[in-house]
Amino acid sequence: MTVLENGWVKKVSITPPSLEDNAADADRLERALMAILKTELVDIDLSVLADLPEQLRKFDFNLRCILFKDHKKWCLAGITGDDDKIVAGLAVDLGTTTVVLRLIDLSTGLRMAEYSFPNPQISIGPDILTRIHFAEKENGLETLNLLIIGGLNLAITELCKSRNISPSGIYLISVAGNTAMTHLFLKLNPRFLIREPYIPVINRPGCLNAGKLGINANQSAKIFVFPNTGSYFGGDLVAGILYSGLNRSEKTAILVDVGTNAEVVLGNKNWLVACAGAAGPALEGGVTKMGMMAGPGVIDRVSVDSETGLFSIHTIEDLPPRGICGSGVIDLAAVLFLSGMIDIRGKFVPGACKERLKEKDGLKHFVLVPANESAEGSDLSISQADLDSLIRSKAAMYTILETIASYVGISLSELSTFYVAGTFGSLINPRSAITIGMMPDLPEGTYRSIGNSSLEGASMILKDCRLMDEIDAIRNSITYIELNVNQDFMNRFSAARFLPHTNLSLFPSVKSDGLVRNPQKA
Amino acid sequence: MTVLENGWVKKVSITPPSLEDNAADADRLERALMAILKTELVDIDLSVLADLPEQLRKFDFNLRCILFKDHKKWCLAGITGDDDKIVAGLAVDLGTTTVVLRLIDLSTGLRMAEYSFPNPQISIGPDILTRIHFAEKENGLETLNLLIIGGLNLAITELCKSRNISPSGIYLISVAGNTAMTHLFLKLNPRFLIREPYIPVINRPGCLNAGKLGINANQSAKIFVFPNTGSYFGGDLVAGILYSGLNRSEKTAILVDVGTNAEVVLGNKNWLVACAGAAGPALEGGVTKMGMMAGPGVIDRVSVDSETGLFSIHTIEDLPPRGICGSGVIDLAAVLFLSGMIDIRGKFVPGACKERLKEKDGLKHFVLVPANESAEGSDLSISQADLDSLIRSKAAMYTILETIASYVGISLSELSTFYVAGTFGSLINPRSAITIGMMPDLPEGTYRSIGNSSLEGASMILKDCRLMDEIDAIRNSITYIELNVNQDFMNRFSAARFLPHTNLSLFPSVKSDGLVRNPQKA
Repeated sequence: MTVLENGWVKKVSITPPSLEDNAADADRLERALMAILKTELVDIDLSVLADLPEQLRKFDFNLRCILFKDHKKWCLAGITGDDDKIVAGLAVDLGTTTVVLRLIDLSTGLRMAEYSFPNPQISIGPDILTRIHFAEKENGLETLNLLIIGGLNLAITELCKSRNISPSGIYLISVAGNTAMTHLFLKLNPRFLIREPYIPVINRPGCLNAGKLGINANQSAKIFVFPNTGSYFGGDLVAGILYSGLNRSEKTAILVDVGTNAEVVLGNKNWLVACAGAAGPALEGGVTKMGMMAGPGVIDRVSVDSETGLFSIHTIEDLPPRGICGSGVIDLAAVLFLSGMIDIRGKFVPGACKERLKEKDGLKHFVLVPANESAEGSDLSISQADLDSLIRSKAAMYTILETIASYVGISLSELSTFYVAGTFGSLINPRSAITIGMMPDLPEGTYRSIGNSSLEGASMILKDCRLMDEIDAIRNSITYIELNVNQDFMNRFSAARFLPHTNLSLFPSVKSDGLVRNPQKA
Repeated sequence: MTVLENGWVKKVSITPPSLEDNAADADRLERALMAILKTELVDIDLSVLADLPEQLRKFDFNLRCILFKDHKKWCLAGITGDDDKIVAGLAVDLGTTTVVLRLIDLSTGLRMAEYSFPNPQISIGPDILTRIHFAEKENGLETLNLLIIGGLNLAITELCKSRNISPSGIYLISVAGNTAMTHLFLKLNPRFLIREPYIPVINRPGCLNAGKLGINANQSAKIFVFPNTGSYFGGDLVAGILYSGLNRSEKTAILVDVGTNAEVVLGNKNWLVACAGAAGPALEGGVTKMGMMAGPGVIDRVSVDSETGLFSIHTIEDLPPRGICGSGVIDLAAVLFLSGMIDIRGKFVPGACKERLKEKDGLKHFVLVPANESAEGSDLSISQADLDSLIRSKAAMYTILETIASYVGISLSELSTFYVAGTFGSLINPRSAITIGMMPDLPEGTYRSIGNSSLEGASMILKDCRLMDEIDAIRNSITYIELNVNQDFMNRFSAARFLPHTNLSLFPSVKSDGLVRNPQKA
């Protein structure tokens, strides 16, 4: 079993007291820690001290100390005997829709267990805006806070049970969430987040006591909450940047987190520029409101045989198809476009679609899976309205990318790496996204799907005490730009509403390539 | 109404946010405070932030901030609107026997109300040792902690009611107590305080959250607990030093707190040396176990007419006499000695005492107040055993003073000021104490009674933010010496067991002076 070299758990041997050296136990411990950590101040909470005299004497003045850092200041999150008892940490991705927890052995850094659950605040409203409004009602904030804290405590119980440890064995918790979720987690009023000039109560909550927040963990456990840079750029993104390594890269790269919104960070080790997609009427409906959520039986990939023109689909867990998720919709749109079944405006071409095109409720639908092959017993189809919505979304996405690149004066083609984060992002086939002009026409190797980067960033911080300063550095180096939906933005947006783009020279690989040579035969 | 120039309440005007300056509310407040305080870090607790957005906007970004300092680091204890609402602080003398609270207006420094109550832990045991043993039983520590916290909360309710404010109007609390009481207050295990090598859990608790300790005050109120220097030298003494100004004096002075034990500090602005009286068998019974506690009807002063030899007494509140307290016993012993009714060993001289000497239970008693004049209907007398005990006590006291002076190599006669603290101390007549050789033979103007210096010190810290660093300086400059009851100590002690002393040259004023010229006539 390897022990983390730069982990938060430190073995500490303390000189036993004598009549000549009768400093208090806390002072002795502090002295020892200061020497080990080469620091002048270690914050020791009263709750750690309750146990200190007995533990010191029981373990012959040899302890393991679980440390943490709060705004560059070391603090002690707990002490335990120098034995084999597991000392655990908990990384939390505090999503608006889904909350994911990962239990980590703080000594080894090994993953012990993982657990996810739907954010119980969904019962108040699926989107964050509804929740913020609800928080203004009497006891609204308390209710929302209790829902998330209660959900987390249930999850902690389950996680601990699965590994047969007690929640009191959890000493460090790192939480990454968007700004609004962070506020609700901390029971802070989010109302000014959504009102001009969009002011959070706090950006850097730092280290807090788990007990004070009502979290079921060790009585002196510390919670680190990732800082946000503003109302629309939260700690989840900062965690994501940490995980992607964007901030350590010599070459300029981009990180796109495609979740409920699209959040984009562009930069390198010298600077970071960020923006978020929820900006103004052009993006109403968000960038990713396509299809259903990924889940068993949901179509996540669509392709077409270039010779026969036959569609083939892939469903999650290979179950009979019951719907289509965002990545499937993007694949489908790409296939339809390449096979000539939709035109450059994204409108169905009846002559090419043939019998697959049906009219329902006065809208044209393209049937991907006929009723007899679907798990639902009805056609699985995509309507012209769905496609129109996709076109708006992809145009918004591309416009945001163009806007941020032009803000720093680089071309998207110069990007060394294009990180795609988020569960949805991880399912997207970059080739399809390029084909419809949602993402820039970069060599496919440039694209890197990094999954739940928020959870990964939150996990990283529990394994390496040197990263705490890096988080501050990330936060401080981010320039957040407000997406001004001005004439320039609208011009870009209009140009991006074609497949793949009005300016085909931006997408040479799409222009030169037609997967289906005989679309009429399909 | 004058406003304290260096108080903890600061008016803060914050620049309202805008789209161009959209820092979080907490960041804006922090920025403003850093500028005012000329510091790089202000700790802002989550509980303060709950109210922040609304308060900021309600008071047009003008606030009063209640600050405090924890180990040289500023922290925010609360915010309130820039109006006339009273912002209160609470000073607490956490005595083993009596707890005294003083409510202070933090803006003006004015005393608002005072309240004292018997320490409810007395129900467990009157002395601290019994309580420490009780703390080792199951739930013992919790019980003791609940008793003192509950008592304080009742007292806070009464105090607040008397001035028609809410406990939530209390933002700062300073607590001065001995080391054991401090541990019980903080619910920290005191067991190692009384076991060699006598190690406290903590010496510098610093600033804590009132809510976390269960104290009924503002939800974000801070509690400063005066630091101790060791198991036998507590925060009450540090507060006393602060109040006496010993640490600011050019000339060497001494501070004696005559409470349950005698605690002594000698020094000046360059150094401080301290010791406490509860050391070894010579001092068994303490230095001040004489008579009863001061209270209405208790004789606190005794004198004799030098011509007629008639005794006169003074009772507290001038009520009929019902007993005699320590200061009365010292006066009486002095009078008896000067009038020749006791000899230099403190033994009654029957020929001089005459009919005032009675035999009860095989012991000689000197009747001070005959039955018909006493409130009790029985003689108020002092026995030979009482006198013997007084002699041991006064010898112990003087030996401690001599020992500490010889430790630093000065003579007691060099002392510029002799501060006497404590309720008992404030009642002692220095002349009598000199006469019996309990205190050194200094000019009477050298003696200064300073009352409840622990409460006064605790009050001072609430009125002047510059003093926090001074407390640390006091603590750090104290050298605590263990009173080794060795041969040297015992020799001094034996010499001090005479009235006033074996070496009469140490007490020239007593030697040369006889208040009663014709003791035989008394």
